[in-house]
Formats: sequence, structure tokens, C-alpha cells
Amino acid sequence: MQNIRQFIETNQQRFLDELFGLIRIPSISSEEKHKPDMVKAAGYWAQLLLKAGADKAEVIPTTGNPVVYGEKIIDPGLPVVLVYGHYDVMPVDPLELWNSPPFEPEIRDGKIYARGADDDKGQCFIHAKAFEYLVQSKTLPCNVRFMIEGEEEIGSGPLTVWCAENKDMLKADVILVSDTTMIGHDAPSITCGLRGIAYLEVEVTGANRDLHSGLFGGAVANPINVLAQMIASLHDEKKRVTVKGFYDDVIVLNEADRAELNKAPFDQNKYKQSLGIGHMYGEDGYTTPERIGIRPTLDVCGIWGGYTGEGTKTVIPSKAYAKISMRLVPNQDHERIARLFTEHFLSIAPDGVKVKVTALHGGQAYVSPTGSAAYRAAEKALETTFGKRPVPVYSGGSIPVIATFEKVLGIKSILMGFGLDSDAIHSPNENFSLISLFKGIESVVRFYENFISCLRN
Amino acid sequence: MQNIRQFIETNQQRFLDELFGLIRIPSISSEEKHKPDMVKAAGYWAQLLLKAGADKAEVIPTTGNPVVYGEKIIDPGLPVVLVYGHYDVMPVDPLELWNSPPFEPEIRDGKIYARGADDDKGQCFIHAKAFEYLVQSKTLPCNVRFMIEGEEEIGSGPLTVWCAENKDMLKADVILVSDTTMIGHDAPSITCGLRGIAYLEVEVTGANRDLHSGLFGGAVANPINVLAQMIASLHDEKKRVTVKGFYDDVIVLNEADRAELNKAPFDQNKYKQSLGIGHMYGEDGYTTPERIGIRPTLDVCGIWGGYTGEGTKTVIPSKAYAKISMRLVPNQDHERIARLFTEHFLSIAPDGVKVKVTALHGGQAYVSPTGSAAYRAAEKALETTFGKRPVPVYSGGSIPVIATFEKVLGIKSILMGFGLDSDAIHSPNENFSLISLFKGIESVVRFYENFISCLRN
Repeated sequence: MQNIRQFIETNQQRFLDELFGLIRIPSISSEEKHKPDMVKAAGYWAQLLLKAGADKAEVIPTTGNPVVYGEKIIDPGLPVVLVYGHYDVMPVDPLELWNSPPFEPEIRDGKIYARGADDDKGQCFIHAKAFEYLVQSKTLPCNVRFMIEGEEEIGSGPLTVWCAENKDMLKADVILVSDTTMIGHDAPSITCGLRGIAYLEVEVTGANRDLHSGLFGGAVANPINVLAQMIASLHDEKKRVTVKGFYDDVIVLNEADRAELNKAPFDQNKYKQSLGIGHMYGEDGYTTPERIGIRPTLDVCGIWGGYTGEGTKTVIPSKAYAKISMRLVPNQDHERIARLFTEHFLSIAPDGVKVKVTALHGGQAYVSPTGSAAYRAAEKALETTFGKRPVPVYSGGSIPVIATFEKVLGIKSILMGFGLDSDAIHSPNENFSLISLFKGIESVVRFYENFISCLRN
Repeated sequence: MQNIRQFIETNQQRFLDELFGLIRIPSISSEEKHKPDMVKAAGYWAQLLLKAGADKAEVIPTTGNPVVYGEKIIDPGLPVVLVYGHYDVMPVDPLELWNSPPFEPEIRDGKIYARGADDDKGQCFIHAKAFEYLVQSKTLPCNVRFMIEGEEEIGSGPLTVWCAENKDMLKADVILVSDTTMIGHDAPSITCGLRGIAYLEVEVTGANRDLHSGLFGGAVANPINVLAQMIASLHDEKKRVTVKGFYDDVIVLNEADRAELNKAPFDQNKYKQSLGIGHMYGEDGYTTPERIGIRPTLDVCGIWGGYTGEGTKTVIPSKAYAKISMRLVPNQDHERIARLFTEHFLSIAPDGVKVKVTALHGGQAYVSPTGSAAYRAAEKALETTFGKRPVPVYSGGSIPVIATFEKVLGIKSILMGFGLDSDAIHSPNENFSLISLFKGIESVVRFYENFISCLRN
């Protein structure tokens, strides 16, 4: 049998063909019309797992999109690794900014360009191929379960219910997840913190119909102007969130922990350059890694109202809307924050408008201990593969279901992500480097090689 | 020959058929794809004028949409009335709020529902039919010219050029315009003031691409949040516009003039009820008619950025936009205001974003003297038709070209409008009452009956 590097080398083209087949299914979970694609993507995954050597792989209905469950139990007495990933992807708009069609993967400069190339089709595919190698080389040292869901991008609601109902089937020693980033191929890292999220939509209504801005301008509340004022008031001059009670449960790190966190390599100039910005912008008194890793934030993810077409229309619209996302840190409860936001936002509405707030989704923040057996196995795996000891980092992103796993299943997750910040996930021209893909497969194989011995020490 | 009331009664159905033919042409000037409809609507108008009795009627190319010019010169020694109107209409979105298709006119409860039913197809059509009666009844007391343009809703730029180049052809004693409202059929009024307008689009750019709101949220400027803050800062707590120099040229009315203005019938409760609002909202220290009639304002007419689709997308967009309209009062120059706004808006941009401001269109405010012969002729005409002496009012709307006419042609306009505030012009379900249409025709005929004698006194 070949070693893992030879195996990857030999099968490179087949791997890409298989991954591209998955990517071509436009499984956008937030758009109703893609329901059939969700089922198709789930079926594709079940086939991938069976072909890779799973004893069984099923597409299981839930209250939402189906879950793909697969397993290989080589000995019930051995430890179990539960692999989690998702087959759903983000919407693709604005479509005009893509350089190639989002669901027609294309390799340019050593990177696969497509929606889902990284998040999470590419990253999750790594586990199928590592598993395949371990089965074929007869070196799988433990039992493996797979749980691939279809609603991660919209909050993993149905999976949460399904997990609670299938605790026995999901018993495991660790959950292994590749849905995050590392700092760079020359600076491997393991994510040990994730922010939580509370995502809401607000609607401001003025008059009962659109009005002519000349005949009525100045006399009635303009819902766009009012919405702008309300949004502006959500931050103070120090760029802190003004929602009453927002920071109540935030754990303030001590100076030593902050110093530790700021040791991870971070090049502010390179960061600004890659984003095309002249200045950073954020809460006073914190560094960029702190602002992203340990501080909660509030961002408007979408706003709309009135005339947005070509040219001019002199209108005061009846309604204006915004989608607002708050990223939360450990100990902030997303349901409490959604409630505080709602109360606050309703309380600041001026006379003359009606305001409606709808919570769209939420998830808790998560912290992973760096001393666990699985963390150490991941650490060794990445060090062997990338030639450098990985550092623990706090990510600004949220994978709400990770906190849910701990709460519902009582299992910790290891976030061994292979994405890069430049992968443009959730954006036009999402991409995933072939290095990430192939070194990812090698890393996961090495994780299994180390896991049992780490468990014993 | 019948009198005017009998004439209207007899020809009612034919009038509606002719008007509906005009309305069915979707002549939206702000949308490029409707270019052919502009030519079609202009051609339809030329035919209407010829059939009504014009000596000639031509569709004349300009740098933009064509102008329809028609005339009947019964005696070069007699005074000339120049009728102005426009055949272009506003866009129709949001289409889903229309109860019947916008370009398929429908009569419900004595009102014609359609885009352009009032503004300005319906109102301008009144003049074609009044002219037709005067010709047929051989009672036309003076010469008449028609000038019907196709870019009023986007600023009348090409007409301005065309007027300057055709001054001789357009010589007249007064310009007669029906493109405004009256208070009610039981409270006729003549508009003697119009606000000017400066309409701009702003663009705020953060990073060079859309970013994941988790991975970057808190560390970079979010252009939506920044735009909201910038917009919010455009008004102070007294709801005055904060653009530096904005009020410099505003003429402040004395108490007597303000008292006179507030004498026009205005029922605040009825107004609020009709708009479905609980509170008025506007500049401190002014009544609603003052806020609309004599005070400049700033309204956002459209805003957009980020994800605006179904569900959630956790994105910090690269760009956010707004369309901003300022209504101006006499003596405020729209070009100066556009310049002041641009300077101010650029100056308040925080570090971390780039801001672009584009002026889209503008027009000067206008005041019409209430003592002129034409005003008195209009006053008598409305009094005879509606049974009540009309009052002069200041409208909040803008017809930029009216100020241009005075500047370029040296001719004052009389704004004898037959619309009602409830006509929902520029909005879904625009409508025009049959009473307005038919009494409008009668009023215009009576205007001509009185015009010569008023000129002599």
C-alpha cells in the first residue's frame, strides 16, 4: 500500500472529479427553490461515504433538510470519532461579481473557485478521502461516524432536534470538524474559540403607502432616515454596542490571556492591504485579533428600502428593512441577546413609525480546551504535515451547532480547519487552494494515527 | 354647438378611450429599456393634438426623449397661451402592491387607476380636450401652443436645452400647466409655490470585497453601518438639516405671511388618518403646511446594501448606497446645495471607508404671483367650475422646469392642477378621479374664456 502522500498524488484527479460533482449541486439552504438540490447533495454524500468504505450511509429525513449519517464500526470497544460537516452553502449574489459561474468549479492558480469550494464542501470532503485511505490501507485505528447536515448556514435548527433524538447512535469521544480557517500554510493553527450569533431582521413602517417626497417630504417620518438613525444609535463614539445589557455577560480576559492571544502571528499591514482598506475600524482599546476573537460585535448585513433602481424616483417609502447580525462571545446567551436587542430596538423607535423585529437565527459561542487528547492529536498531525507546530486561535466566526453538540450530546469538538482568510467564503469568488485540500487529507489521516496514543497519555 | 358641460357628457366614453390609449404606453423615462415607448407616447400626443384641431403637431428630437410641439395660431396679433405637460411617467415598483396592472387602466369607484392616470397623462390630456372644444365651438379667443416633454420625471434636462434653442417658436404670454394638486373638489386651490430639488446618489465602500461577518465583524468598517451613521448625522435633534450652509439662502417668511399660509384648509387628523400614522414628524417650530410649503428638507428615497434576500446571510458588504433628495425653497440654488451636500458628505466620512457622491438631477424652486392676469383667469375659471373661490397654496413638490421656463424663456407659469393628494402619484395604485378629469376640462375652457378680459384689466 502507498503511503498517504503517494495515495493523494495517485488519486488527485479522481478526488477533484468527485468534489466537483458535489460542488455542482447548488445546495443553497436559505432559498426555498433549492429544496430538491438539498436532497441531491445529501444523496451524493451518502454515495461518497459508501464508496470510501463506510459500513452504511443513509440520508435521514429531519424536520428540515436531511442529515447524512454514515459509520464504520471496526470494534465496539474502540474509541469513536464523529465527523461533522455540512453540505449546504451560502447564496451566491451578487452574481455579477463572480469571475466564473459559482456552481461550475474552475481551477485557477492552484485554487478551486466555486461556492462551497471551501465552506464546507471542500473541507468536509477531506474527511471522506482521509477515511477512504485509512480503510483501504487497513490502518483505521478506531470507529468513525459521519454526520453531514444541510442547514448549517441557516442555524442548524433541525439537526439540533435530530441530535437530541439520536444521542445513542451519535456516541463518540470527540467530534472532528473542518469548517474553519488556519492562519496560513506556513502558520498552521487550530481554532479553539468560536463566536456565537444572534441574527435578526427589523422593519420600520412610516405611512401606509409610498409617498411623493416633494408633497410629503418634511412632514412625515421617512422610514429610511429613521432606520438609519436607529442603526447609528446602536454604537457609541467608542464603537461599543449600545444595546442595554449587551456586555453584561461578556467575560473580560485578563492581561496575561490577552497577551497570549496577541502572540499569534498577525500582520496588520498585510491584512489591510488584502482588504484594500487604509484604516482598521472597531471597538476602542482592542487589537484586531481581540476585536474578532473575544469581543462581541453588531453588524448590519443587509439594508433596503425605497427606490433602488436606475436613475431617480422621488419617493418616501412606506417601509425600510435591515438584517442585523450580532457576534457573541462565550457566556453571552444568544436568546437573551436577541431579546435585549428586540426590547432596545423597539424602545428607541421615534413617534411616527411602527417597528417590527424578527429573530431569524442564533447560536452560542464555544471554547475548546487546548489540553485534550484530540487537540494534541490534531496538533501533532498539523505539525507533521505542515512542518510547524500549530497555534491555538480564537475565530470570529460562528458554527452555532458546535455549542449545541456539547450541550445536547456532551461531546467536545476539535476545529481542525484548512480554509484561509483569503478563501472569500460567503462572498463572490469563494475558493479553496489545492494545497489546503491535499494537505488537509494528509493531516486528517495523521490525526487518526495519533489519536489513540494521545488518548492513552 | 353644445355648451362645455354637454360636450363633456356626450364625449365622455371617447375621452376615456383616448386617454387609456395613452396610459397603456409604459413611458417610464428613468428606465433605458422603455426608450421605444417614449417615442410611441410622443407620437400618440401629436395625433391627439392634430385630431383636436392643431394646425400642426410634431415629434421633435432632442438630446433626450423627443418633445411634442403643436400650435394653433388663429391671429398672430392675439395673445398666446403655451401649454406645458409631460408624457413620461415614474417607475412602477413595487409592482406587487398594485391592485391592477399599472399600464392597464381600470375604473373603480369613479377613479382611473394606472401609472400616469394623474401624473401627468391624465392632467395634460385635459388641455387637449379643452382645446378641442374651443376649436370645435369656434370660441378659441387666442393662440395656443403645446409643448409636451418626455423627461420631466428625470429633471427635464434636454427640454431646457431645446427651449433655449427655440425661444422664438415658444413666445407666449403665459405657460399653463396642470401637474399639481388642489386641496379638494370642495376646496379648489392654485399652486403658487413649488420647491426646488437636488437629488444625489451616495456610495460608501469598505473592503474590496464582501466579507464574512463573523471572521471580519468588529475589525473593519461596515459600509452599511457607516452609511447609516452618516445619514443619521444629516439631521440634528430639532430635525434641521445639518449640511453646512444648507439654510444660508432660505428666505424666512414673516409672521403675517406665515399666518396667511396657515389659513388654507388643513385637517391634521384627517391627514394622519389617510396616511395611517399616529404622529407627524418634522422640523421643530413649523406647522405641517409650512414644513411642506416653505421649508427645505432632506429625505432618503432609497437605500441598499448587503444581503436583502430571504433568510440570512452573514456578510459585511463591500458597498452600500443611498439616493438622497433635498427639496429646496425659493432662493436656494440647487447646484449650490448639491455642491454643499457633496462637500459635507465627503467631510463626514470616517477613516476606513471611501465615499462617492453623484448628483443625479436638480431644479430650482418657483413662486408665482397671485395678481397676474393668468392667475385671475384661473381663479375665475375654478370658481365657476367648482363653485368656490380657489386659495393660493405652496406645494412641497418640484417641477424643476417651471423655474427654468422663467429663466430661459422669461415666461411665468400658472399651475392650475387638478390632482388630489390621495391620487398616490409616484406610488402603487396611482389614480385620477373622473371628477378631476371632467371638471378639469371645463375649468381650462373657462380659463380661456376669462384670459383675454383679465389681460385687459
